[in-house]
Amino acid sequence: MTQHASMRAVVMESLGDYGPLALQEVPTPIPGDGEVLARVCTSGVNRADLLQRHGKHPAPAGWPKDILGLEFSGVVEALGPDTSRWRVGDRVMGLLGGGGYAEYVTAHGSTLVPVPEGMTEHDAGAIPEVFLTAFDAAVMQMGLDAGEVLLIHAVGSGVGTSALQIGKALGAVTIGTSRTPEKLETAKALGLDHAVLGDEEWPERVLELTDGRGVDVILDLVGGPYLEGNQRVVARRGRHIVVGVPGGTSGQIDLRAMMLRRVTMKGTVLRARPLDEKVVLTRAFEERLLPFFSSGELKPVIDRVFPPEDVELAHEVMASNENFGKLLLHWE
Amino acid sequence: MTQHASMRAVVMESLGDYGPLALQEVPTPIPGDGEVLARVCTSGVNRADLLQRHGKHPAPAGWPKDILGLEFSGVVEALGPDTSRWRVGDRVMGLLGGGGYAEYVTAHGSTLVPVPEGMTEHDAGAIPEVFLTAFDAAVMQMGLDAGEVLLIHAVGSGVGTSALQIGKALGAVTIGTSRTPEKLETAKALGLDHAVLGDEEWPERVLELTDGRGVDVILDLVGGPYLEGNQRVVARRGRHIVVGVPGGTSGQIDLRAMMLRRVTMKGTVLRARPLDEKVVLTRAFEERLLPFFSSGELKPVIDRVFPPEDVELAHEVMASNENFGKLLLHWE
Repeated sequence: MTQHASMRAVVMESLGDYGPLALQEVPTPIPGDGEVLARVCTSGVNRADLLQRHGKHPAPAGWPKDILGLEFSGVVEALGPDTSRWRVGDRVMGLLGGGGYAEYVTAHGSTLVPVPEGMTEHDAGAIPEVFLTAFDAAVMQMGLDAGEVLLIHAVGSGVGTSALQIGKALGAVTIGTSRTPEKLETAKALGLDHAVLGDEEWPERVLELTDGRGVDVILDLVGGPYLEGNQRVVARRGRHIVVGVPGGTSGQIDLRAMMLRRVTMKGTVLRARPLDEKVVLTRAFEERLLPFFSSGELKPVIDRVFPPEDVELAHEVMASNENFGKLLLHWE
Repeated sequence: MTQHASMRAVVMESLGDYGPLALQEVPTPIPGDGEVLARVCTSGVNRADLLQRHGKHPAPAGWPKDILGLEFSGVVEALGPDTSRWRVGDRVMGLLGGGGYAEYVTAHGSTLVPVPEGMTEHDAGAIPEVFLTAFDAAVMQMGLDAGEVLLIHAVGSGVGTSALQIGKALGAVTIGTSRTPEKLETAKALGLDHAVLGDEEWPERVLELTDGRGVDVILDLVGGPYLEGNQRVVARRGRHIVVGVPGGTSGQIDLRAMMLRRVTMKGTVLRARPLDEKVVLTRAFEERLLPFFSSGELKPVIDRVFPPEDVELAHEVMASNENFGKLLLHWE
């Protein structure tokens, strides 16, 4: 393994106007204090990348502004100063603030996780963003516990399929909604306990499934249109976490109902958190979920893999919302 | 101290119709396992008592249905089986699920707190409901920390004046709103850092006071009409807890704004919680706040004290919203 002075990367030629993406030679990044340099095997494509191309979701300070990419899986190539945990050749995966669409990335060592035993670093590239988002929201923030009922809206999405697997692995009962019957079937094949079509009747069906008690945790990847229904189906001491609002951003809320049932609502985003928060999340993820990947109970869901040259095609598929599972770029 | 087979109590002669309250002789309660019997010095009058008279806020299971009263201060008169902490003659105060408008009450020993040193049990009757509510909401549930900014709506209310004192004692910066200028003045005399008139311009003034950063914790005793403003003034990672909604119960919410600032909203009620939760709250209150009462940094605020015969007058004053501070019934 040799370090190269330059590498291939997908570069945004202009910022904020959804302009072309070009595969270019750029300088290989140099790992700073506590950082590792990793050779990327696969980089995940995320909806946030499309927003960033539109100028709506700029990279946080300290990350490349013109190279998209929020996650990767690969192999440690070199160590920066004061990096104790990793060795050259270790297989790692993790979240990035940007720069993931490239042959090499740098990341703080304490934000990386080993690629699970028995899994290729190719497939592991489909893990970080969706599984960490679902784990952070449902488990770390909302305290999902064994025996509780987890309701996942847009269960066919990347975060949705991750959440349903995590819910199952941790002993929760999972209910998922989708407007697409085929996505519900595929979610059931992944272990979803109860599939509910996301039409106007979904709150009634969720209440029936829970004998009128309602659900303990709502992982909300839809937003406004489901807000009224969410307030109807949330159980006493229920927790509703808003992770995405593609369906609409606003709605009416009943504060008295929130009081009487002692309901918590929370909004969350994963990106742009300070390092210390990311470290806590990464370590908890490694401790609690990594064994389930090694045992096969948790599985990354991959729809398609593209060569970096076809990145714009990958973005078109993402925009069309046709995929079930992750879209990856493969570097070799 | 002699135990009597009967005692005086204020009894609701009919339930749910805001009928008359009558001072009657009723059987003195008998303390069960882990309970103490206490002779009441003062019983607090609460807005919830008025709701209960209207049939809207019934007593939880296991508490008297026809005797109002959610808090008391007094002296331990007798011990039930398996009651280790208290001795006859100890001065105690605490929350009740009901039955407080009486000469004697029973309560689980682990939900009681000693009357602070240097304070009469007469005045201590004004502490439990408002200080425990404010402490539970702002500190236990929302994690108010030293150096943070606490915004209190309806700061002139019983919970409001308690919250501002607790905020000050724990090192927070306190901002309070009220629609009544006189209540703002009295709140400032109690230590409120910034008084803001609750007219349409309050969000602008709160943002000015915080240099545009907003507030970390909102203790909301108003509800719907302030919801839009609360969303404007809440800081990144801010927490908004809804403790009362006399102003209105519903409003519009912006889920995307909640996500980007990672805001938590929570509704809460103190009554009807299981014993284990009440015990945790009571012990934390004793450990963290009781020293501030003994040192004089926290003070119960008493508006007026009534003999039990005048309980209906006390309810009229409560309904008129004229009082600044607690209304108490005094038993002797």
